Amino acid sequence: MNCIIAQSGGPTSVINSSVAGLVEANNDLKIFNNVFAGLNGIEGILDKNIINLSELTKDQLETFKYTPSSGLGSCRYKLKNFTENEEEYTELMNILDELDVKAFFYVGGNDSMDTIAKLSAYAEEKNIDIKFIGIPKTIDNDLMFTDHTPGFGSAAKFIATSTLETYLDSTVYIDNGVFIVETMGRDTGWLAASSALATVDGKPVADLIYLPEVAFDTEKFLQDVARLYKEKKHVYIVASEGLKNEDGDFITSLNSKKAHDKFGHTQLGGVGNYLKDLIIDKEITHRVKVLELSVLQRCSMHIASKTDIDEAAMVGREALNYAKDGNSGYMVAIKRDANMPYKSSTFLVKAKDVANKVKYFPTEWINEEGNFITKEGLKYLRPLIVDEPNLIIENYLPKYRVFSR
Amino acid sequence: MNCIIAQSGGPTSVINSSVAGLVEANNDLKIFNNVFAGLNGIEGILDKNIINLSELTKDQLETFKYTPSSGLGSCRYKLKNFTENEEEYTELMNILDELDVKAFFYVGGNDSMDTIAKLSAYAEEKNIDIKFIGIPKTIDNDLMFTDHTPGFGSAAKFIATSTLETYLDSTVYIDNGVFIVETMGRDTGWLAASSALATVDGKPVADLIYLPEVAFDTEKFLQDVARLYKEKKHVYIVASEGLKNEDGDFITSLNSKKAHDKFGHTQLGGVGNYLKDLIIDKEITHRVKVLELSVLQRCSMHIASKTDIDEAAMVGREALNYAKDGNSGYMVAIKRDANMPYKSSTFLVKAKDVANKVKYFPTEWINEEGNFITKEGLKYLRPLIVDEPNLIIENYLPKYRVFSR
Repeated sequence: MNCIIAQSGGPTSVINSSVAGLVEANNDLKIFNNVFAGLNGIEGILDKNIINLSELTKDQLETFKYTPSSGLGSCRYKLKNFTENEEEYTELMNILDELDVKAFFYVGGNDSMDTIAKLSAYAEEKNIDIKFIGIPKTIDNDLMFTDHTPGFGSAAKFIATSTLETYLDSTVYIDNGVFIVETMGRDTGWLAASSALATVDGKPVADLIYLPEVAFDTEKFLQDVARLYKEKKHVYIVASEGLKNEDGDFITSLNSKKAHDKFGHTQLGGVGNYLKDLIIDKEITHRVKVLELSVLQRCSMHIASKTDIDEAAMVGREALNYAKDGNSGYMVAIKRDANMPYKSSTFLVKAKDVANKVKYFPTEWINEEGNFITKEGLKYLRPLIVDEPNLIIENYLPKYRVFSR
Repeated sequence: MNCIIAQSGGPTSVINSSVAGLVEANNDLKIFNNVFAGLNGIEGILDKNIINLSELTKDQLETFKYTPSSGLGSCRYKLKNFTENEEEYTELMNILDELDVKAFFYVGGNDSMDTIAKLSAYAEEKNIDIKFIGIPKTIDNDLMFTDHTPGFGSAAKFIATSTLETYLDSTVYIDNGVFIVETMGRDTGWLAASSALATVDGKPVADLIYLPEVAFDTEKFLQDVARLYKEKKHVYIVASEGLKNEDGDFITSLNSKKAHDKFGHTQLGGVGNYLKDLIIDKEITHRVKVLELSVLQRCSMHIASKTDIDEAAMVGREALNYAKDGNSGYMVAIKRDANMPYKSSTFLVKAKDVANKVKYFPTEWINEEGNFITKEGLKYLRPLIVDEPNLIIENYLPKYRVFSR
């Protein structure tokens, strides 16, 4: 009796920690004979591109645990409803049957939870004895019900650290102009909000933080920037890539090319440059620098949160236990049991309730002016970035191990 | 009898380590009663914006040592020749005299060494008993005579680490397209070259590395990218911002706005997007992602090189000793005494010999095809990134301290 695991969607720094946590738990508990892995998500399973993670040595597994970015490879494969294309389902179930797989684990975001919901419903309808469990992962922190998602804490820690360091870099002269950091965050402001954790002498270094949850007001923005620039000769701004105007349109959509990925998401980017142009056009200052943190925020394991790594491993481990107990069609969610000292545990939510939904940054954690985070918001964020991992070093750089390249 | 120190030009991660090294040494040796600091470089001294670093506690000094980016503030003030504008010189000398300053230390790149050369020549001609010593700093590693410059090793470590992590991030799918990292490096390729240190399973992760020292050949570039993409479905490219064609013109200069800073440097940026357009126009693939490391490469103390920090402190400490011994008009340079285990010491070079000159990446350390670094080059680079600092942590982020904000 075996199980199989695969990764899907955009990577995070700690997505492999969940896989390693599950494999470690199975090594200890011997629930399944083998933990197989499909390379490149469900596509790899359908292509029979499969490896056996139970054959890894303890050292190999440990290195993998601290390797950022989908080490099993990823995909953006969207499963159709089985009423539309049952062939895919029967093909997959046959492959799982050949491998004597009794549990299927999918590490991903809300698109992956959609896959788990569909597969478990199909298996139930067809009386197939395979359990399907989703393991959450996304730097965006936008999955419903779970207190937060593995991957977010490490991204938040990278963003807060980079905010701190680039603030120091961008304020060395007497007249510094404006510095704009663009974070990821298509629909939600969790990532941008985490920049508020960066302080020097107890004071936040970011002056203005903009989230997609607040309609962007161009006039107010320019007034605030002009006032702060006059006052201090430097303004530090953090903006989420997904800023929207009061009509709900992306503010960059008017003057940039639009494209759509397979799931209908608009491909974004360019909010920083959009804001820069506003400031220059208004003649506040011509010294405006934009930094896009881009993919660095989802793969910088070297400054990951140890709390995040530990929790990623925890949801992997617990996924195994939940499957053993006969659960199927669920996602493993995180419950915050205590904030300080921080403690968390897991519970199950129905994958179909998570799929295709979005958890927004609470508006009560945004200040009245709509341009900063409240103390309550910081209280939520802070425990998620605690401590650093002890990386394995080789040739003076982190040693990483992947299976899909 | 006092001394004064100031910082100039673009910041690095370890520029404060040099200041802290000098202050620590003076605390031990009591050569001067006080180490004063001018805030915002020579501009701050002329404005009498001066603090006393000898009043810092041991803890404050230690925090400052591990704080990235000019903690004393910086400037881009270019001293005229004293035959053109003697007033500036007499004003400065009067201020130094009022403070009973007998030694002046300037932490900077080749523009700052020009300042040291001019001031020491003036003092000598006027029989003014003040010693002028330059302390090198630049992430660009382009100062003559010194084996390398403090600041470079930390930038190299950040670039190598980010190359490793973004390589993992950019290769998770079956078809990944092309990933382009743009590093700083206006005239020289030291920074771009350091990406060659990033390996997985002993193999470099970067496929192609382009330096300004090699004339960029568009046809060869497109052939290499097309071949590698066909072979592997992903290509990882690192390019210096300062790439030039065979006529010596910046390849981005044809289709981007040009601007000049006060020292006549062209303001660059956009090489990554320039290469992206070439690849898309040639229809190799439309999946091309560009990452500009931008200012992160000069302020990421959280992944600094401990070797770099220690050497930055060493040149600060030695600057004090060289001034005590009566030297003036020199820059403290680094000599590599042994490569493995690595050992270095300092020596003096005339500041005027360093000023306004550029040390290029040796062409013998570039492969024949002009798109990668040789083993000899890696042997030079590797010791400079060794070990990590033990940062002081507060609220789960590095604790930093500056004086000029």
